[in-house]
Amino acid sequence: MLDPRPVGYVIGLLVAVLGLLMVPPMLVDLAEGREHWPVFFESAVLTFLTGSLVALACQNSRGREITIRQGFLLTVGTWVALPAFAAIPFMMGATQARFVDALFEAMSGMTTTGATVFAGLDDLPKGLLLWRGILQWLGGLGIVIVAMLFLPIMRVGGMQFFRSESFDTLGKVMPRAIDISKALLATYIVLTLACVLTYIVLGMDPFVATVHALTSVSTGGFSTSDASFSGFSAPLQYACILFMFLASVPFVRLMLIGSGKFRPLLFDFQVQAYALAIAAAIFLIFAMRVIMGDPLDEDMFRHVAFNVVSIFSGTGYGDGDVTLWGAAPLVVLLAVGAIGGCTGSTGCSIKVFRYLILFKALAAQLRLIGSPNRIVSPRLAGRPIEQDVIESVMLMFTMFILTLGLMSVALALTGLPFMEATTGAWTAIFNVGPAFGELVGDSGALSAFPDSAKYIMIFGMLLGRLELVVVYVLFTSTFWRG
Amino acid sequence: MLDPRPVGYVIGLLVAVLGLLMVPPMLVDLAEGREHWPVFFESAVLTFLTGSLVALACQNSRGREITIRQGFLLTVGTWVALPAFAAIPFMMGATQARFVDALFEAMSGMTTTGATVFAGLDDLPKGLLLWRGILQWLGGLGIVIVAMLFLPIMRVGGMQFFRSESFDTLGKVMPRAIDISKALLATYIVLTLACVLTYIVLGMDPFVATVHALTSVSTGGFSTSDASFSGFSAPLQYACILFMFLASVPFVRLMLIGSGKFRPLLFDFQVQAYALAIAAAIFLIFAMRVIMGDPLDEDMFRHVAFNVVSIFSGTGYGDGDVTLWGAAPLVVLLAVGAIGGCTGSTGCSIKVFRYLILFKALAAQLRLIGSPNRIVSPRLAGRPIEQDVIESVMLMFTMFILTLGLMSVALALTGLPFMEATTGAWTAIFNVGPAFGELVGDSGALSAFPDSAKYIMIFGMLLGRLELVVVYVLFTSTFWRG
Ligand SMILES: [K+]
Ligand SMILES: [K+]
Repeated sequence: MLDPRPVGYVIGLLVAVLGLLMVPPMLVDLAEGREHWPVFFESAVLTFLTGSLVALACQNSRGREITIRQGFLLTVGTWVALPAFAAIPFMMGATQARFVDALFEAMSGMTTTGATVFAGLDDLPKGLLLWRGILQWLGGLGIVIVAMLFLPIMRVGGMQFFRSESFDTLGKVMPRAIDISKALLATYIVLTLACVLTYIVLGMDPFVATVHALTSVSTGGFSTSDASFSGFSAPLQYACILFMFLASVPFVRLMLIGSGKFRPLLFDFQVQAYALAIAAAIFLIFAMRVIMGDPLDEDMFRHVAFNVVSIFSGTGYGDGDVTLWGAAPLVVLLAVGAIGGCTGSTGCSIKVFRYLILFKALAAQLRLIGSPNRIVSPRLAGRPIEQDVIESVMLMFTMFILTLGLMSVALALTGLPFMEATTGAWTAIFNVGPAFGELVGDSGALSAFPDSAKYIMIFGMLLGRLELVVVYVLFTSTFWRG
Repeated sequence: MLDPRPVGYVIGLLVAVLGLLMVPPMLVDLAEGREHWPVFFESAVLTFLTGSLVALACQNSRGREITIRQGFLLTVGTWVALPAFAAIPFMMGATQARFVDALFEAMSGMTTTGATVFAGLDDLPKGLLLWRGILQWLGGLGIVIVAMLFLPIMRVGGMQFFRSESFDTLGKVMPRAIDISKALLATYIVLTLACVLTYIVLGMDPFVATVHALTSVSTGGFSTSDASFSGFSAPLQYACILFMFLASVPFVRLMLIGSGKFRPLLFDFQVQAYALAIAAAIFLIFAMRVIMGDPLDEDMFRHVAFNVVSIFSGTGYGDGDVTLWGAAPLVVLLAVGAIGGCTGSTGCSIKVFRYLILFKALAAQLRLIGSPNRIVSPRLAGRPIEQDVIESVMLMFTMFILTLGLMSVALALTGLPFMEATTGAWTAIFNVGPAFGELVGDSGALSAFPDSAKYIMIFGMLLGRLELVVVYVLFTSTFWRG
């Protein structure tokens, strides 16, 4: 039997922390003076008390080692419980959201997807805008910890390729988990502060800068305005491109910058491949637009670069209507969203390194089929790729594609048109943010989607953020019998 | 070094045979009296002579065993050389096609895709209509031979799962290849004749019945009329459903029906899964249309069933505008096209058994991740699935998806709108036939597509029909060195 109490203890603590994190929005609301602060006060009390009670109830399990199976349960449980509580302010607050919309917004926040059901953001109380930013920031932090500590030992999606760079067994991890999380948190906070300061220096209002920094470094993409990033100046857009890029490279490399070591970042095979892929996508779309006769200037280049990095990193800030660029750039952007950034970052989607492994494995097997007598072992970054890693990566890729297909069908079944159904599935599974089609509001809000579609997307965002496997494992019978 | 002469010998012979096959259209044209017969006369002479000369030039290699590598070259060479010659009548004849259109039509024929660039079929000389049917019939025959004799020993796409049912090594195959091909040919001819007779009995004109039989049993989908199958009666449509189904089940099973053995067909795991999947898709789309308020009657059921089987089998006969049914049925039909029929048939696409293996492998690895101490070995049809098979299947699935993505991008780059680019890539890669969008003519003709898009689709049809791997292998450097 799986003992749920150690899991309950940690989730209880995290829910309590979530309650404490409702205090800053409360203070902001208090300062704004729109009488909106009681929403966060009541939500905070409710959330903190419930979390504390659960933690207390499971307290006798404190300090017990968490097994791998409990690790899965903990990960999924966290991304279900926290959004559920995080949704409360959206239901009680000025958004007056129904349960499905509130949960959608909270899940979109915690999974750093950034799809929203709210239009008219500019008029919302500042507390709610900050709350959306905090959710994404927290979700980004959470996923980096999961990716660094848990996924490699869980053998999920070929993450064991990075095992040597992290830790071999759960036994070795747990004692250092706190230390690593602290170092990570410090890096994340420094990156966030650097982002806030840059945005302020370049002319953003301090509150707006804070929220956008929270959603930039988490590759979340929530904004304080319906105009999203199209309303900001050119220097701010370039700064945002930089921070979206930094947020989607491995945080273990970013950590070293603090001690003046830039080489590990610059020479990381993932970072190099990622930068190259970004450059290629920008060049491709830029060239297409030039061929189609769009004016060749800095403005056009910047919008292309912004959107490519926004989608590649999985941030998803809006910057103009990219569907106006024509079908080819849109298809490239959709493909870019299905690739995504580097593993060990706040970025999402299938990730660059998995494509590298796929291509290496495909080439190796083609060579084997063509000349069966040669022994071929695919290598990446100077290391042989173990069979185990290849299988896990192919498994994950296959799951992503099949899930994308099934979710497109499911969304179409709710009555969504073709474009909305396919890009809705794409944005949910790959945690990108924007969806395309006529049912998508001018501000990018998905409020017109039917409730059933919203529930499907909520599940899709959860699936995608936890790299599918972590959720799907819970649906195997042996997991519970184990 | 790879000796190309044994390959050249066989391809030369096949081209000569293709020349002989231009005689029936010539006779039909002669009988019709529209002075169109010289087109086929000249084409036949040119094709027969060229093929014979090539065969003669390579004659000293006759009887030499063909190696696996030569097998790849032979397969790809056949599907490049034959369409090139088969295109001649389209250039010289009443269609007055430019090279790209003629090659498109011929490749679409030989790969049994069935996408056409010609509108106004009803007015074409009968010889050309018959020629299109012959090309699909020949392509269907060719692919079954390749699938039964070559693919299992080539370790392509998990076909080695069926090795025990076929033959272990090339050495064992070659002596029996002629016998097997003969038995296969007999079955194929009987199936075709049964189809012709059924269509005639149910009221089709004998010539129209012949062409449609040729394109039914090959799951090709070319028609003699712009109306395709929407112009035929209900009994004819049901008959067509039956023959499209039979053409997409394993021919080794069909062969046994001749000796009165129905059980191997009925109890084949592929056939059962395939039939189940068809029933599910029909039920799903039927239910959707009922919910959307379409009249619930035999007519509606029949059109749903016809289109599902037409796309599932990869035949692609038109029967009304399915895009009018709404987004959900369209997405289901697109998914259905990405599944396809049974291996060892004339059907195309990824194929049902590969999905079965994928699901089994995914479930097994999920169980392994959830409870690492259990030993799990996936099984299918009572047999363990070897690791080798799983890898090949995942490889092929990954290749299909990546190729589909790249081809969508490439088609969008030619200027095709989103729907045309994605469904164009889909129809080419999976050899289905129809594409959707405003640039597709009322009759389904793709004549308005830019030339660059047509060339990309020509390559896509070749790739898809030869299960990608067979073509991609030729692009590895070791293949040519080895
Ligand atoms: K995002
Ligand atoms: K077809």
